[in-house]
Amino acid sequence: MSGRRFDVTAIGNAIVDVIAAADEALLVEHKLVKGAMSLIDAADAERLYRVMGPGREVSGGSAANTVAGIAALGGRAAYIGKVADDQLGDVFTHDIRAIGVTYDTPALTEGLSTARSLIFVTPDAARTMQTFLGATTQLGPEDVNMEYITSSRVVYLEGYLWDQPRAKQAMRDAALRAQASGVTVALTLSDAFCVDRFRDEFLDLVEHHVDVLFANEGEILSLYQVRTFDEALQCVRPHCHVAVLTRSEKGAVVLGGGEVHVIDAVPAVRVVDTTGAGDAYAAGFLYAYTRDCDLATCGRLGCAMAAEVIGHYGARPEADVKSIAARVLSGRTTRAGSTRSAG
Amino acid sequence: MSGRRFDVTAIGNAIVDVIAAADEALLVEHKLVKGAMSLIDAADAERLYRVMGPGREVSGGSAANTVAGIAALGGRAAYIGKVADDQLGDVFTHDIRAIGVTYDTPALTEGLSTARSLIFVTPDAARTMQTFLGATTQLGPEDVNMEYITSSRVVYLEGYLWDQPRAKQAMRDAALRAQASGVTVALTLSDAFCVDRFRDEFLDLVEHHVDVLFANEGEILSLYQVRTFDEALQCVRPHCHVAVLTRSEKGAVVLGGGEVHVIDAVPAVRVVDTTGAGDAYAAGFLYAYTRDCDLATCGRLGCAMAAEVIGHYGARPEADVKSIAARVLSGRTTRAGSTRSAG
Repeated sequence: MSGRRFDVTAIGNAIVDVIAAADEALLVEHKLVKGAMSLIDAADAERLYRVMGPGREVSGGSAANTVAGIAALGGRAAYIGKVADDQLGDVFTHDIRAIGVTYDTPALTEGLSTARSLIFVTPDAARTMQTFLGATTQLGPEDVNMEYITSSRVVYLEGYLWDQPRAKQAMRDAALRAQASGVTVALTLSDAFCVDRFRDEFLDLVEHHVDVLFANEGEILSLYQVRTFDEALQCVRPHCHVAVLTRSEKGAVVLGGGEVHVIDAVPAVRVVDTTGAGDAYAAGFLYAYTRDCDLATCGRLGCAMAAEVIGHYGARPEADVKSIAARVLSGRTTRAGSTRSAG
Repeated sequence: MSGRRFDVTAIGNAIVDVIAAADEALLVEHKLVKGAMSLIDAADAERLYRVMGPGREVSGGSAANTVAGIAALGGRAAYIGKVADDQLGDVFTHDIRAIGVTYDTPALTEGLSTARSLIFVTPDAARTMQTFLGATTQLGPEDVNMEYITSSRVVYLEGYLWDQPRAKQAMRDAALRAQASGVTVALTLSDAFCVDRFRDEFLDLVEHHVDVLFANEGEILSLYQVRTFDEALQCVRPHCHVAVLTRSEKGAVVLGGGEVHVIDAVPAVRVVDTTGAGDAYAAGFLYAYTRDCDLATCGRLGCAMAAEVIGHYGARPEADVKSIAARVLSGRTTRAGSTRSAG
């Protein structure tokens, strides 16, 4: 496996985030579901942008943030996602390549513009996302470079893509090819409302195709339609090779085989904007995972990466995360059943 | 004067900043003049963007930052500047309106795209700007809304515009109309290299048309071709009603009539990115100035605003600057010769 070209190839919605501070009253006035990602059309995007405060444009997209984090850590990553041939598309492409991710999905040349997510950050650092999918809706199976899939250690799929039939097909094709090639399939559930829209499909995926599942508390409760975290934990244990359940300030629980690790969040972080916390967690986890670290180390690097991105606006790391990784990984052991020896 | 519609109307280059961290070696390799603003063409913009790290897009433009700061403080401001009818133009327009600035210069509908400035921020927080002017080069006298000029207390002109003949004409028209209408004319020299390119024109302006001059140390040394700050100080004293000379960590010197005020910088600021420090200084100064504060108070609010923006990436204020102003202005007195009573 060590000869594979990429540690992780991800498929996701290629989005530029427009981030602005907002007060609670604005969310109420415009009936925005706080903390969630809602899909909006072009007219709503126009309308909401008009009421939004001054913003900053930063490349985003859940899985794209994750591979950006992996590359920032020094990992080898590729990304598959659809932008349009416009200024925001150029921004997205520049940023993901500049951080070191291989990205060459053809841009859409006519019709829809590059996707953007209007992110309202309230004083409590919660983010409420209103996403206009634009060009991402045109991602299809033809965009999946199967050479990238089969030459990766992990293929990482973004649950958000389930909203688009052709993107869903692209994900399924990638998952099947990955399984057939001995490539680990990872999935993030992305959003509790997204899980609610496609629960049966996600349950089928988790039971039959996913090796490593990422979910936050709301998502895993939604998947199993249970009320408590512990109930969800019991539901997911029999499935997946590994399940990574993130719990914001409560840290994360990592399940794998018979192991259960309860990892505390990094204490005393000044939280500015939680956008991308889960994405960064996945980056840290997968970076360590593809280096055959024990699951507790993977979980700890996830928490350390999440702590980095919530300390500033924007979903991608800004600090020297390689030194964070060096510190966390100094205490690692090799994962049981890993296919590589510790390096 | 108190019946005027705007405290300040500014004319400047409407630019979206692309801000990324960079190391010194990159500046050397690409022969970038550290700390300066250099103009580049579309091909160079393309080439430099390729070597730039992941960035964030934030509305900028020197005079635009200043009016944004004035609006954030609660002042009434208008802006005249040219974007194109494209995504980055939409971003610029949205952000400046969202902060409360009146802005309705018609966007360019064909040809050039919205201006962008690639800003390389080195670990010492210095910013090196490479600006592609794009649509801003098409600003002309027809874009100057003379109703805004004549209904303002201050018209604020950006020296950067001197690089474009038609924009220069627009500025001259605005300055003459302002003078004829009893409106204060303020000018920022913008950049030592810009001053070097148009020294005679700036000297003529300063001597005959400018009431309030803003310059940093490098700019005022360049204007008078002298070697020490004190020499420059002596040169500028006979000219301008007010001269505001900013000196980074050394604070600022404010001259007005017979007065000379030496204002210390705010101590112990953690400097992240100096982009927009001078623009923010001008915002604080002019906000207090249009409220008839004494010059020392104007200078102190300038320093306080500069301290706010250098503490984060991006050139526009993010903190609650109204409370900063309330604190600084609590000690104010009324300016000698002011046309309004203290309010």
